[in-house]
This record gives sequence, C-alpha cells and structure tokens, in this order.
Amino acid sequence: MTLIKTFAEGDEVVGFYLVKKAEMKQTNTTPPKDYFDFVLADSSGEIPAKLWDASAVDKETYFPMMLVKVRGLVQMYRDKPQMRINRIRKSTEEDGYALTDFIRSAPIQPADLVNMIKQTAAGIQDSEYRSIVEFCIRKVEDRLMHYPAAKGMHHAYFAGLAYHICRMLELGEFVAKQRPFLNRDLIKAGIILHDIAKPEEMNAEYGIVTDYSMKGKLIGHISLAANWIIEAAIALGLDPSHEKIVILQHLVLSHHNLGEWGSPVQPQTPEAVALHYIDTLDAKLQAVEDAIDSTPDSEDWTPPLRIIENKPIYRMRT
Amino acid sequence: MTLIKTFAEGDEVVGFYLVKKAEMKQTNTTPPKDYFDFVLADSSGEIPAKLWDASAVDKETYFPMMLVKVRGLVQMYRDKPQMRINRIRKSTEEDGYALTDFIRSAPIQPADLVNMIKQTAAGIQDSEYRSIVEFCIRKVEDRLMHYPAAKGMHHAYFAGLAYHICRMLELGEFVAKQRPFLNRDLIKAGIILHDIAKPEEMNAEYGIVTDYSMKGKLIGHISLAANWIIEAAIALGLDPSHEKIVILQHLVLSHHNLGEWGSPVQPQTPEAVALHYIDTLDAKLQAVEDAIDSTPDSEDWTPPLRIIENKPIYRMRT
Amino acid sequence: MTLIKTFAEGDEVVGFYLVKKAEMKQTNTTPPKDYFDFVLADSSGEIPAKLWDASAVDKETYFPMMLVKVRGLVQMYRDKPQMRINRIRKSTEEDGYALTDFIRSAPIQPADLVNMIKQTAAGIQDSEYRSIVEFCIRKVEDRLMHYPAAKGMHHAYFAGLAYHICRMLELGEFVAKQRPFLNRDLIKAGIILHDIAKPEEMNAEYGIVTDYSMKGKLIGHISLAANWIIEAAIALGLDPSHEKIVILQHLVLSHHNLGEWGSPVQPQTPEAVALHYIDTLDAKLQAVEDAIDSTPDSEDWTPPLRIIENKPIYRMRT
Amino acid sequence: MTLIKTFAEGDEVVGFYLVKKAEMKQTNTTPPKDYFDFVLADSSGEIPAKLWDASAVDKETYFPMMLVKVRGLVQMYRDKPQMRINRIRKSTEEDGYALTDFIRSAPIQPADLVNMIKQTAAGIQDSEYRSIVEFCIRKVEDRLMHYPAAKGMHHAYFAGLAYHICRMLELGEFVAKQRPFLNRDLIKAGIILHDIAKPEEMNAEYGIVTDYSMKGKLIGHISLAANWIIEAAIALGLDPSHEKIVILQHLVLSHHNLGEWGSPVQPQTPEAVALHYIDTLDAKLQAVEDAIDSTPDSEDWTPPLRIIENKPIYRMRT
Amino acid sequence: MTLIKTFAEGDEVVGFYLVKKAEMKQTNTTPPKDYFDFVLADSSGEIPAKLWDASAVDKETYFPMMLVKVRGLVQMYRDKPQMRINRIRKSTEEDGYALTDFIRSAPIQPADLVNMIKQTAAGIQDSEYRSIVEFCIRKVEDRLMHYPAAKGMHHAYFAGLAYHICRMLELGEFVAKQRPFLNRDLIKAGIILHDIAKPEEMNAEYGIVTDYSMKGKLIGHISLAANWIIEAAIALGLDPSHEKIVILQHLVLSHHNLGEWGSPVQPQTPEAVALHYIDTLDAKLQAVEDAIDSTPDSEDWTPPLRIIENKPIYRMRT
Amino acid sequence: MTLIKTFAEGDEVVGFYLVKKAEMKQTNTTPPKDYFDFVLADSSGEIPAKLWDASAVDKETYFPMMLVKVRGLVQMYRDKPQMRINRIRKSTEEDGYALTDFIRSAPIQPADLVNMIKQTAAGIQDSEYRSIVEFCIRKVEDRLMHYPAAKGMHHAYFAGLAYHICRMLELGEFVAKQRPFLNRDLIKAGIILHDIAKPEEMNAEYGIVTDYSMKGKLIGHISLAANWIIEAAIALGLDPSHEKIVILQHLVLSHHNLGEWGSPVQPQTPEAVALHYIDTLDAKLQAVEDAIDSTPDSEDWTPPLRIIENKPIYRMRT
Repeated sequence: MTLIKTFAEGDEVVGFYLVKKAEMKQTNTTPPKDYFDFVLADSSGEIPAKLWDASAVDKETYFPMMLVKVRGLVQMYRDKPQMRINRIRKSTEEDGYALTDFIRSAPIQPADLVNMIKQTAAGIQDSEYRSIVEFCIRKVEDRLMHYPAAKGMHHAYFAGLAYHICRMLELGEFVAKQRPFLNRDLIKAGIILHDIAKPEEMNAEYGIVTDYSMKGKLIGHISLAANWIIEAAIALGLDPSHEKIVILQHLVLSHHNLGEWGSPVQPQTPEAVALHYIDTLDAKLQAVEDAIDSTPDSEDWTPPLRIIENKPIYRMRT
Repeated sequence: MTLIKTFAEGDEVVGFYLVKKAEMKQTNTTPPKDYFDFVLADSSGEIPAKLWDASAVDKETYFPMMLVKVRGLVQMYRDKPQMRINRIRKSTEEDGYALTDFIRSAPIQPADLVNMIKQTAAGIQDSEYRSIVEFCIRKVEDRLMHYPAAKGMHHAYFAGLAYHICRMLELGEFVAKQRPFLNRDLIKAGIILHDIAKPEEMNAEYGIVTDYSMKGKLIGHISLAANWIIEAAIALGLDPSHEKIVILQHLVLSHHNLGEWGSPVQPQTPEAVALHYIDTLDAKLQAVEDAIDSTPDSEDWTPPLRIIENKPIYRMRT
Repeated sequence: MTLIKTFAEGDEVVGFYLVKKAEMKQTNTTPPKDYFDFVLADSSGEIPAKLWDASAVDKETYFPMMLVKVRGLVQMYRDKPQMRINRIRKSTEEDGYALTDFIRSAPIQPADLVNMIKQTAAGIQDSEYRSIVEFCIRKVEDRLMHYPAAKGMHHAYFAGLAYHICRMLELGEFVAKQRPFLNRDLIKAGIILHDIAKPEEMNAEYGIVTDYSMKGKLIGHISLAANWIIEAAIALGLDPSHEKIVILQHLVLSHHNLGEWGSPVQPQTPEAVALHYIDTLDAKLQAVEDAIDSTPDSEDWTPPLRIIENKPIYRMRT
Repeated sequence: MTLIKTFAEGDEVVGFYLVKKAEMKQTNTTPPKDYFDFVLADSSGEIPAKLWDASAVDKETYFPMMLVKVRGLVQMYRDKPQMRINRIRKSTEEDGYALTDFIRSAPIQPADLVNMIKQTAAGIQDSEYRSIVEFCIRKVEDRLMHYPAAKGMHHAYFAGLAYHICRMLELGEFVAKQRPFLNRDLIKAGIILHDIAKPEEMNAEYGIVTDYSMKGKLIGHISLAANWIIEAAIALGLDPSHEKIVILQHLVLSHHNLGEWGSPVQPQTPEAVALHYIDTLDAKLQAVEDAIDSTPDSEDWTPPLRIIENKPIYRMRT
Repeated sequence: MTLIKTFAEGDEVVGFYLVKKAEMKQTNTTPPKDYFDFVLADSSGEIPAKLWDASAVDKETYFPMMLVKVRGLVQMYRDKPQMRINRIRKSTEEDGYALTDFIRSAPIQPADLVNMIKQTAAGIQDSEYRSIVEFCIRKVEDRLMHYPAAKGMHHAYFAGLAYHICRMLELGEFVAKQRPFLNRDLIKAGIILHDIAKPEEMNAEYGIVTDYSMKGKLIGHISLAANWIIEAAIALGLDPSHEKIVILQHLVLSHHNLGEWGSPVQPQTPEAVALHYIDTLDAKLQAVEDAIDSTPDSEDWTPPLRIIENKPIYRMRT
Repeated sequence: MTLIKTFAEGDEVVGFYLVKKAEMKQTNTTPPKDYFDFVLADSSGEIPAKLWDASAVDKETYFPMMLVKVRGLVQMYRDKPQMRINRIRKSTEEDGYALTDFIRSAPIQPADLVNMIKQTAAGIQDSEYRSIVEFCIRKVEDRLMHYPAAKGMHHAYFAGLAYHICRMLELGEFVAKQRPFLNRDLIKAGIILHDIAKPEEMNAEYGIVTDYSMKGKLIGHISLAANWIIEAAIALGLDPSHEKIVILQHLVLSHHNLGEWGSPVQPQTPEAVALHYIDTLDAKLQAVEDAIDSTPDSEDWTPPLRIIENKPIYRMRT
C-alpha cells in the first residue's frame, strides 16, 4: 500500500487508511449539499480528504478512529496535497488490518519498554527509593503501554512516553558511569519519575493527546508526581519529610529547570542537574530524528520544529 | 529612651538596645587591636556601633540577641549614622526590659492574630475544606506566633506572617461580599493556606529570617503546602485525587501567579485569581506603610523598595 | 425569547436579535449569488448567521445596529454554532424592543453610576483636588453614560467604564479605611481620574469600541488625562507646577505601573501604589466574572482570557 | 599645570584643582584621627585624594566646588591612582583661575549654543509651532546656558544639553534635506522640545547633576514638556486639543521609543520616528567620542559605557 | 492606465498588469469547476483577482511573472478589494510593456547606484581596506543591479539593496564630517560591506525575495561577509589576523548591534557604533517613506510596520 | 601539607603555597606603613593573607606565580577565613615543589588529552573534514596543553579546554551510537572545533585567564574558528563555499544555540543540535562536580554557581 508520505499530485490511490477526523459539512450552494471532510492517516503521515455528495447512509457510517478502504485522486489545494475520494468503504475483519498498523508508534514494543522500566526500578539498590518508584509505576503501568510523552513537542505517538524514559535510562547509565560522583539510584529514580504523571495530566488515545485533563491544567504533571511521592511515603510508612523524600521530590519538581518552563524550584542536586540535561538532550534529538523521518524524501528541510525555537532542520545528502 | 530612628549626628545617647550583630574584629595597626563591630537595634530601626579597645572580658560577654545598656556618640560614616560606644553593660532583670520590646513586631498581639486565623478556619462551612485547613494550621500554630512573612520583601518582622494573613482575611471578606460569585470558603482557605509552609521554608528567630532551610531551597513553601494538603487528605480519609483537593492545591500552587515567580501553574479558578491579587495588594501596601514608618521624619523619600521595582516612596506633607 | 448563549445544534429558533455585522458576499458558484453574512447578538452572546439568496431589496434593508426578527436553524460549522436564516424582517416600533435590550451592559443603571461618581467627587474635602476632579468629569459626563472601559480586556460593554470606576470606589473606600495612612481624597481622585480620558482615546457606540481615535493613538488616555489636569489647574487659577498638581498627575501617569504597560513613571506615592493594585484587582475579577457569565452552562471552562495571561477559568460546580 | 588624565604612579604634582567632594572621616586607630577624603577634578578627569591629619582649621576651610592649590604624590590604591596631599591651600583671586576652567564643558560657548537654538526656533515657518517652541525655550533659557543633558549617560557636562540640541539640529537639517517628505518645522520643533524639561527634572550645578527633583521623579521630563505644550497653547489662545498640539506632544511623548525606556506612546509620525533615531545617533556617538577623549592615551580601551550595553570602545592607532 | 493603488469598489478596469501569482483551483460545487486564483500587480501595489470558468487552454497559458491585459470589475471581499476578471490575454511585444515597468524599484537607476558604490570604494584611501572592499563588491556586482535589501522589512524592491547602501553613504559622509574623530575610510568600508552578502543569503527575482538560501539559513549574511573578508585577505596576500582584518570583520559582525538580532559581537569601535545607527536610521525612515507612498490617499494611517514595533504611521495633511 | 580547603579558624599553618596575588598597600595610620596583601593558593583552593610590616626587601622579593613557604594563623574576617603571615620565604629548588603542584588542573595529563584529540581527528573518515580539523588543531596544539575552557564558568583550570573536549568526545561517541542517524564524523569534528579558537580569544597562564584579547572582544572565538575553517579550505584547495564548509561552519557558529548567547545562527542540522546539548551537559555537570570537590567537607551547600542560574548545589551525605 502506498504510504501517505510518498503521495504526489495526480496519484490515483487505492488503499487502507485510518480516519483521523470525520466532519459533515455543507457546501454554500443553493441548495447546500452535504459532504465529508476527512483526515486520513497511516504511520507515515496524514492527508485531508473530501468525499463530495455524501449520502445519508455515509453520514451514519464513518467516524474517527475507524479503518477504511478508499480509492481517490491526490490534488494540490493551497500548496498542500489533499485527496478527492471516489470510493470508500469500511474495513472489515477479513481485510486483516489492525488499528495499530496505522498509527505512529515507538520503534520498540510497548511491553518491552515497560519491562525495561520495571526492571530498572527493581535494580534500584536503596529500598526506599525503589519502593516509591515502584509505587508510582503501578499507578500508570497500563497507560505506559500506549501514552505519548507530549501533545506535540516530542515523542508524540503510541508508547512515546515509555520510549522516552527508556532512551533516557540508557543515556543516564552512560553519564553515571562517566561521572561516578553521581548517585546511580537517583539518576534511575529521577528518570522514571520525572514524567510519570503525564498520563494523569493529558487525555490520550492511540498515542494522540486530545486535551489536558482538569487536574492537568490545575495541578500539572510535575506537582501530581510530587503528590504521588507523598502518597507512596505514607503508604510505605515513611516520614513524608524525610530527606530522601525531599530529594526525590526535588528531582521531579526541578526537572523543567526554570520557573517559566513550569518548575517551582531550580535543580540544586547533582542528579537534578543531570536529569534536566539528559531529558533535554533526549527530547530534542528525538524530535529532530522524527522530523527527518516524516519529511518527504524530496525535501531538504523539515518543517520548523517548536522544540528547537521553531527552526527547521537541514538534511545533508552526502 | 531615644528611638534609633531619631538619632542625629552629634547626639550623646544613653539607653537600652538590642545587640543584633556582634563581631570581633582587629584593626590593621601594628600590633592589631581587637574591637567590637555591633549592630544595635530597637523597634524603630538599627545602627552600626563600634566598641574600640574591646577587652578580653568583653569578648566573652556580648552576643547577638542580647539586651545592653550603652552610652555613646552618634557620628556620620560614609553618609550614614553610626555610634561610637563609650560605655556598655549587659541589661539585667532589674532593668525591666524584655527582648520583644526591641524588635519590630506586628501592631497586634500574636495571640490575637492566631486566634483570628483559627476562628476564621472554624467558620469555613464545608467540613472537608475546614478539616484540611485546620490540619495545616496545627502544623505551624506555635510558629505562627512569631514568624515573619518573608526575609525582607514585606512583613519581615515578629508575627508578620500571621498579621499578613489576618489583613488579607479582612480584605478577602470584603471582596467576597462585593462579588458573591466567589466561594467564601475557598477565599478563606486560600488565604490561610497560601503561605502556611513558610515557617518550614525559612529559619527565623525573633521575627528575623536567618536563612532558608534545606527543604525550603529544594522544595519551596508552595510545594510544601501542597504536600501538607495531601497528608491532610490521607489523614482525614479523603481521596487525594478528589476535586476538592485539586481545587485547594491549585489555590496554593498558583498564588505566585507566574512561573518566574515560583508558581508551577497559573490561577485558573475565580478564587485563585482573587487570592493572588489580594495577596499582592496587601503585601505591597504593607511594605509601603512600613517603609514610611521607618523613614526618619526629616526625609521626603523612603529608600528604594525592592517589592515595588526598587522605587522609593514620596511622603507628601500637606 | 431564546438567549443565544443557550442555542444548541438543530434548534429551530424564532426571535428578535440585534444585527451586529451585515456584509453582502457572493458565492463562488457560476453565476455567483449574493448572500448576507450576519452576526446576530443579544445580551447573552452572539452568533454568525447566513441568509442565502439575498434579494436586491434585502441588500438595501439590513444594516448593523438594527433590530430584526428572524426564524432560523442552528447548525454546526467548524465546531461552532451558526444560524441558517429562513425568514427575516426588520423590527418595528410595535414589536416593543429597544436596542439597549440587546447589548451587554453594566448591571447598574448608567445614571446611578454617574451619580455615584459625581457624589464621590463632591465629597472630596480638599477643594483644589475636588475642583480638578469635577472639571475632568464635566469633560466626559455624557460619555460616561455609555462608554465601555476597554476594547476587549475588561468591562467591554455599555457603561462599563462608569461601572469599573464605581466598583473601584467601593474597594478604595475599604482599603483607605483599613489603612488610615492613605489619603482618602487622593484615593477617590485617583480612581475617578485614572481612566477618565478613555472616551477621548477610543471611539465607541452602544458600549462597543470600534477603534482608537487619532489622539488615542498619538497621545493615549494616560497623557490626555494629564493634559486635562493642567487645563483644569489653569482654568481654576492654580499654578500648574504646584505640588498638588504633581501628585494628581503622578496618580494618573503611574497607574499602569510599568513602562511596558504604558506608564511613563512608576508609582511612588502610597496612593499611587494603592490605585494601581485596586485597578488591577477590579479589572481581573470583573473579567473572570463576566467570562463565567457568558460561558454556556454546559462548559466547564471559559475561553482563554487575555487579561490573565491567556488562561481559561474552571467553573467548579459543587 | 598637569592634567589629571595624565597622572602616573609616583608623580609629584603641584597645581590648582577643583574640590568635587570633601568629606571628613576618621581613621579606625585609637584614638581615631580626622582626615579629609577629597575628590579633586579638572576638565580632563578626576582623582580621589587624602589629606591625613586634617586640622580643626582645615575642617572649616575646604568645601565642595572650591578651587585649591595642592602639592601631592600620586599612588596606586586598589589598581586606581589616588593622591596623598602634602600641602593644600584655597585658591585666591590673585591666582587667576575661574571655576569654569576646571569643569568639563561643551566645546562651544553656551551663549552661542543658546543663540543657535533660538535662531532655529525663530526660523520655524508655522507660526503656531514657532510660538509654542519659543514659549518653552523661555522657561529654561537661562538653565540652557549650563545644564548637562543627563546624569551620566551622555553629554553629562556644562552646557551639554544645549550642545546635544545643536548637534541634533545639524543632523536633523541634513536628514530633512535628504528626505523631503519630512516636515522641517516639525523636525526642528521636535529636536528643541524633546529634552527641554530636563532642567526641571534634575538639579544640576556646574554641569553636574546632583539628583532628580521631586517633579522629575513623579512626572519625568517627558510629561513635563507635554505639560508645557498645553500651557503654551492656552497662553497663546490655541485649543489644547488642536491637531498641531497633538502632533507636537506626540513628538515629545514618543521620543524614547519604547515604554520600557519611558515613552507612554511609540513614534507614529514620520518626524517622530526621525526624532528618536537622530537623538539616538547623536547621544551614542557623543558618548563614544567623550569616552575616547577622557581615556588616558596609554589605554587601548575605554571603560565600559552604559549607553552602549556596557561595552568598552577600542581605539585603533593606525 | 489606472494604478492598482487607486482602484475603488465598482470600478470597471481595463489595463496591463503583472501576474504575481497564478494558481489553478476548483470550486466545491458538483461537479467542481476549475478557476484561476491570480494576484495582479503594478508598481503601485497588488490585488487578488479571480478568473471563474478557466478553460483548459487558460490553464496552459498563464504563469507567474507574465504580463497580461485584463478587463475586470473591482469588488469587495472580506473588506478588501478583489477583481473579477471578465477578459484576459497575454501581453505581446507590440503592446510595448516591459516587466520592469510593473515592479516596485528604487527611485534611482541601478547602474547609477552601483556606480556610486564603486566610486566610493575607489575613494577609500587606505589601499588594503580599498582592495578588500573592491574584492567583495566584485562577488555581487551583477546582483547589486537588482537585489532588494530584505524580504519585507525595508527596501524590499528592485535594486533596494544598492539604494540602501547609497543613502547610507550620503548619511555616513555627513556624520564623518560632523565628527572628525571617525575614520572616513572605515565608515565607507563598513557601509559597503555590512549587507554585501545578502544576495548570497536570499534568492530573489525582480526585486522580490522568494526564500532564503541554504547558506543563508546555516551561515547568514553576516558571517558570509566575514568569510569573504578572509578570502580577500588571503587572495591579496594579507595576514588574515592583521588588525585591519579584525577591524573590518568587527564592523560587519557587529552591525546588528545585539545578539538577539544576529550579531555575535557588539559594536566596540567608534565606526562600528556609527555604522549600526546609520543603518538603523536609513532603514526605518525608508520604510516609513515607502509605507506612506503606497498607502491610498484616502487613508490617514499606513498599515502597521513590522520594522517600527508594528506601529502604523499617521499622515498629517496640514 | 594542609590543604587550604581544610583550613579552620585558629589553625597555625606551616606549608608551601603559590602566590596568586601580591599587592603592596599602606595602612591609613600616621605615618602609614607598608604591608603585603597576598592571595595564596594550592590545588584545593585559595585564601587571602596579610603580611603586616613588610620590609623594603620583602617588597622586592614576592611576586605573583611564585612559590613560598609560610607560617601563619588562620583568622575570620567578614565571615571569611584569612591568614595572618608570621614568617615567609621563597621556595627554593631544594624544597622540591613545582608550580604545577599548586594549580588546579584537569585530572588527566595534558599530553594524554591532546593525544586523544589528535587520534580522534585522525579517525574522521571523510578526508576533507579530517584535514580541516587537523589544520585547526595545529593552530593551537601547544596551547591545548594548558589552556582552560573559560574564565570562570566551567573547566577554568590547567588543560581544562582539552579535558572538556575529551569528555565531550566520549559522550558524543555514545550519543552517535545510540542514534545512528547522526553523522559520526560531524559529531567528532564539531566537538573538536567548537571551542578551538578559545586560546585566541583569551590570554591565560597556568590555566588562569587574565583577560580577553583584542581579537577575542572584537571577533569572538566563534567567528575566529569560522575564519580558520575558511583558511583551512583555501590552504587545502577546497572551495570555501562548498557544502561541507557550510556544514562545518554551521556547527561552530550555532553551538551557543541562541543569539543572546553569542551564536549568529541557531542549530539547524541534527549534529548541530546534538553538539549544543552535549556541550551543555558536559559543562554543567563538570561545573557541579568541581564545585563539590572544592567545597569544604563541613559545608552542605556549594557557593552559588553562575552556570546554573546562580544556584548552589546541595551535597547529600547518605
């Protein structure tokens, strides 16, 4: 099947795609006519698509997050490709496609990612740090199987959050070896906990954030994770004002580095400094890598990336 | 006794004062001689004072936060008054002075302030809000009797924190009456809780902050108060993710308004918006009032005040 | 009559509404057809509306700020409700509606507001402050009956400016009582004068600002009010460089607090500090209250409000 | 006489200098001794100087802004030259020196500068602009003979303000010729009026600003000049809201360009844009020229200049 | 022929215009029809234009940067004028129009501008500065005949870059005369070199920048010009670390003044300070002059200009 | 020998130390007496020291960067330790100490560091990148043996620059392996070149920067390195506008990320993004590690570190 990323003007396309948006609209002719304004997607990208003259039956048939088979023509509209749909039908079980074939995902199986996180947690030597980290993982373990790390900045896809944590754990392991004055338990704990409350901050399905939750807006994932550390301490019979709790909360609270980026305190332990810059390095490079992957091969430049001050990336060929 | 605020060049002064600082130093003569570099204070202000030729006995006699009787001469040094001490002795019980006579304090008795806070808490109608507020007050009740509200910006004196809360409660009461769409319970709860963890953030004695605590630097009073709300919820058998907990935490977390001022989230409930601006109005006006009070009558302008962008205040006479 | 705020998809609506915008457009069919692109409004909100196939007579009939009776259908277009008009006619006198029934207004009669302002001015004890304030009120008295306080930030409705002044006077009265070191005459004078030149800065009708005037752009309401104080002084035979004139001008000039918000000097008298924060508290809380009022009951969140750093407000139900 | 700018370590100096500061201090020896802490100056620069063992008579003899003859030794103290005074006496009339020989001044006679300004004003063709400009000049004509343009940023010397205006008039004349779409009357009027109220904003003697006046702090020279334009209009029988008054006030109000630099409105007429950048060009280049002039020839770099973001200037030799 | 700047609603227009954009689109009727979405331009401005019912032949006939003769009707669409084309044909040689008649250009012939730049370069007295400047001019001499100075901020038209340099040379000549401490060779060299690499940074045709080049984005015109100075030095047998090379590079590198405006170092020689402010004065005033020129006479205000903080300019009539 | 870092009040100390500063001063007694104001240092830190009653011979004996043997007493002065020297003599060869024993250095031998850098360069596979990198290394090879990486922010010690490069090369190697889409040659080249011109920007001896050079201030190390790349290209017969030259220059020019941090362009290739964040991670963590190393064991907090927004670091004991 042709990947959306490779569509060119004039292509006649037949294939299975995911319906990402499906809105009924009316033309402004007299009398007005109903048409469908779709966004179709596969793992390589997405494209707007129009079904003119939608029938009353169509109206009751097509909804977001459904798989469809379409035949259509790729045209340019305001310098962007869009598809004019000639035929469309729902995908059936016999077609043999699964929804997850069509969405963007981390390149490693979610189960393997979550496993790596849990094994790393189990390897934390200090039993109190370990217990608190495991308590927090349990709060989101199932959602770690599919949550993205963010709405759009970086790792914004299926299991992106778990993938981000795992790559950071690799980098953290290297940095802790290169600089033995860093406490390895805290590097691990900080990496696992820093974004652990993101699934509580955002609502997401199939790796796509639809919006922020009420708690997400009023508390934010940073303070939510701080709350969980207190809950964990109390559940485990630890004094919530013990130095270890302070140190763990500090890692989470300070990991955005500056107040204007959401951290109420700035990094003031060696591991907190390390955590922020490991997080930054991984997020920026992943965003760059993903942008290059999803830019058509014919383009020398990716679109501007918000995460690097809205600059595009140049792809060298040689 | 002459108030320090009224000292003029050439005055011969006799009186009781508080030793705020007492450092032994040496002159750079040969041979060097010991002398005492004091800061003396009363409730109206403070003044540097030198005791030249300090004896070995003196060295073991004078320490900070002690009351002394001095006789000395007021001189100008780099455009600022300073005292040359001619005679000094420790104050004795017979002199009849108490340390609290010499430190700057809120104009209302601490016990009355704490009482007003507790009664306001008791008047919160929603029993869950009330219980959480009372739980947090219990954590700091004794320290509320004397803690300042800040290190230097505003209300930086004995019982300044409790005084700040009480004046805000008066203002909050007025605003809630003027705008009935505001929830009065939340206005009260927000005002009492917003700075409740300051005594955990700073170390203070006699209304003077000596430094920030480890927890104060790594967590900050905003997140510490958020922690206490979680502790209170668990202690009271409430679900820590209940909407009421979210709403209370939001009030505390957002009360500095912007990220660069330390708030991880911005005010997004009516009461959170009200809380921030009530806090601001009270802090700024109190700082202005206190600056005018402690500026010598001969001056038209106070010193620059950090809390209002480092501007001085002009005192109109007419 | 159904309020616009309560319209839901699919509603068949009949009622009287205000035409806020009325533009003739053409479809891009061949041949193109004329249609009317309206915005209809009542005191609860507004909605776009289309009259397809507008006749030549229609073209000469419907204009902005006219009342009409319409029958139409509420539809969704790009996630927002819009009305398809089936029938429309001009409202006649017999229908018994007045334009002011359909525009958003302060909740208190304009005449009562202006009266309160004039009585407060009359109560200023210093005769020179009083005369200057009354001179300035006379410049805009008739426009105070209907001008909004701003184009969109806050109090952007009929008599919003007078309402803003009156609520501030109530709050100023409380603050001046709570802190007797403040000069009550100056609090009153500052509140009345601070925005007094807004009607000269903006052009407005029916409480809606259409644009800024030439003077508004080149001088601004702050310096215009400063001009009026000089004019008043000269007219009253006072020396324009007298300290009282300086103090009054300072209140007006500094009330936006910072240079980047339009104030050429920063507040440096106690009353100037008070004025800025009273203004801020009233403007923010009114904007929050109005946003909640005009948000459909079905929504938990208001739209983002520019006046509070573009944050939305959460409406708690319990 | 040796210029202060050329003093080198170890020089034995005899000459006449101006006493810029003269403070009595005491050593911290036992018993303490009185000594004089002077700042001596001539037109090339200034130097700290100590008179150890000042007698009781000395105390009553030396005051700021007095001319003295001294004999002394140039020493280094904390990397800066300072003079140890061995002999000192007051200058007498027979010595034949005038105070103005010792202070830094504009390179053109003040009377000539003021004359040029008045002739330029007389050459403004529009009689209303001309009358207003002349009205404002009359307010400060005598102070234009000696006032500096600023406290320290640029043109901070005797008649510096008049000199700044005159150089700007030359530059303005060129720009208006190069770009005939600019109104030459307004260019002249704007240049003369833009800083005309500086003598009311600051207190200065002998070209040195001692401090800002009460009006200077509470109103500022920008709004003070705006006031004078209103006064002029009324005195001349012009309507203070006439377009010409608006245009003149706009020139003055906007000449600092940005709110954070003190302008309540931004330049929005061609002449206002020109005025700001002519002012900027002249102030920066004069500050650079003066810094090079007063830097010892042995130095490659001037000290950092606040007016150009605290950068020093490199002096190329070739 | 009627200038586009003077088109009014309802005008029937016949004339020759330049096709600036030409996009084939389809109506959303059933069946969809092809139409042409044009932008037509002349030297006074531009206007969108629609050709409904474009034929298959039309599709292959009209392309950007072609001259056409049209007959059409001026209509309003969303408050902006647009043309409905009734007849259209390609311009032929017999019509006698050249493309350059239709594009915005500097008011002086490009050849004269380039000549003035070359003669000024030839007049630089220091032979090393002269040779380097001439080396760099040779790199872009042909492109100086038509390149604009920027994409949109200022001098964005045919030969705008050469025009900008020439006006700056006039102003630089005046400033260097007014302030003889400035090195005239360096003023000339700095003005000619400061933007000399712009043609390498941007791609432009007919005075219109289409986009930035790869080098423009990755290196920028400032560092590109610095590169050329090194190339010139080596080609001329000069040591690339000679003080003169440093001084020339400094002029170019610092001419944007601040890091956030693209300069890696800030001006630290007298000529570098002069260069930045001469550049600023010329760019801002030209932008203001051009905005007034291209604003319809009926308008009192130009559109907002990005180059002066997005403010519009008021055009005084008197 | 006792390390300076471990000095406590009252210690009687005998040992060898490095004279870092040595200034002759005079007491302000009558007659004034000469004394020596020293700063003594060893590899663990530094301390001010006074030699009262310095003899005429002493004056000619002690100079900066000399080794001395002292006997002295540690006292507190303004809360900081300082030494009163009782005996002092120059160190002789027999004492057996070398200057490099007393200065702070990278923990790896400079020769090994430079070797690693050269071997990495030799391992770059693309011969053009390799030749340019080797050309630039040759420019500074001898200075790489001892230059610090900065004046004070990070790696401010003997061979700190080479050490910084080597640790970055290790980290870069890991990151390039973790993310194979990165070009390893460019990662290596970028790391070696990014600060390669620092020895041209600053003057340094024994790992201590004394000041910035003329070139350093007027051009800066970023543009100096860009110059060297052009020189290298020309020397190697490559076209200075070849894409590879652009890519290498881009790495260097963009490595400070933002304009306000000195980069004229922002990172826009994958390797440029990686380079900036690898640089940041290494610099921050090294600064933290060094601060902990040089903080006395008795302290829980390091001093504030400019490199992490002036925050101190907390040292956890457990």
